[in-house]
Amino acid sequence: MTAPSHEYDDASAITADPLRFGVGARITVSVMSDRYVEIILGALRSLDSSGLTVETGDVSTYIGGDETAILRYLTDLSSNIASSNAHASLTIHLFRGCPGAITCALPSGPGPRRTALPTGRVLDRFASAEWALYPLVDGPGGEGEGGSRLEADHMRDIYAAIDYAVRNGTYRKSEKSVTRLEGDLGVILETVVRGWVGVGGSVQHVASHLTVSLNSPSHKGKE
Amino acid sequence: MTAPSHEYDDASAITADPLRFGVGARITVSVMSDRYVEIILGALRSLDSSGLTVETGDVSTYIGGDETAILRYLTDLSSNIASSNAHASLTIHLFRGCPGAITCALPSGPGPRRTALPTGRVLDRFASAEWALYPLVDGPGGEGEGGSRLEADHMRDIYAAIDYAVRNGTYRKSEKSVTRLEGDLGVILETVVRGWVGVGGSVQHVASHLTVSLNSPSHKGKE
Repeated sequence: MTAPSHEYDDASAITADPLRFGVGARITVSVMSDRYVEIILGALRSLDSSGLTVETGDVSTYIGGDETAILRYLTDLSSNIASSNAHASLTIHLFRGCPGAITCALPSGPGPRRTALPTGRVLDRFASAEWALYPLVDGPGGEGEGGSRLEADHMRDIYAAIDYAVRNGTYRKSEKSVTRLEGDLGVILETVVRGWVGVGGSVQHVASHLTVSLNSPSHKGKE
Repeated sequence: MTAPSHEYDDASAITADPLRFGVGARITVSVMSDRYVEIILGALRSLDSSGLTVETGDVSTYIGGDETAILRYLTDLSSNIASSNAHASLTIHLFRGCPGAITCALPSGPGPRRTALPTGRVLDRFASAEWALYPLVDGPGGEGEGGSRLEADHMRDIYAAIDYAVRNGTYRKSEKSVTRLEGDLGVILETVVRGWVGVGGSVQHVASHLTVSLNSPSHKGKE
């Protein structure tokens, strides 16, 4: 065994720490009701945010922390909103590996973060959703070593994510620019978070966007 | 001059045709009011959809067509929603260069589509927004030729997009995973569509996601 180099130490420390690695989500909850403030505040009140950094803004709420805590928070919040029975939409943006905005601020190439795929919870609430999953190459240095190998790996991981959705029954079809999911709200969230984490096993910077429709008048008979 | 090869012919034909190239947007309008159906139907009624393919779903409305028509439609729709004075959110997903969903269906490497940057319209309505812009490399063959040159170009185009936002005053700050924009709703939409088209001048597949907050109680005094 050789002692790890200083550089390697730093990369390991970054990938091991969800906040330093930039693991987080943004959630916009929109409730189609005059009672939207009451419903949203009620849904937020009982949430377990342990292990998470939470910052509420006028456009979205940011949560930062590990992937298991993020899925738990998303599941609890979505469940509370669904239980209001009001028609609502959720816009969920998942990101890891790029703590900055349009341009990344991570030192080049700490590499992918490999973590166990988190497990969700069946909520017995119907939802329909549109899903986009992006493995990103962030310009010179952002790709890490062995670019072409990583590329093959991320395609394999994307197919695994779709395959998981097919097997659990939430995959409905491929549409223009998105994959349509339908079924149990909790299973949809689990599918999307696992897809994001899975692709993140071979690519440093992975973003995913999900738009969810809850309690829609057009869902009658499916719930 | 040499005659263009058959392959080149086909690539030109694809990049010239917005629908074959997969130029489109998805829009989710959420109105925080019991009157949401009436407000959304009213906003859609008078819209000019000439030059666009429009498909309405329960999660989003898809519009496909050229970038100028897309910006016009987004501006008109957003303006109508803002004029209702109801608190609303808009989730806008722009995409070009990948007609399929998670995996691209374009024949490999038709290359980027270069078009003039469309011009928007000042709406005299305040909005706050969070913006993500993704140049995407879609696995083997998707990058076209000269990967490293394209990479340098897309970073230049991303900086140009941010610079445009700074100069027109909508850029507020870089946040975790997004860029925050604030100011005139029409100028924000123009900024985001131009950024997407600009980066698309060097990268085939470009996606952008924007979440907009309109008539928020927390915007009082800024409108």
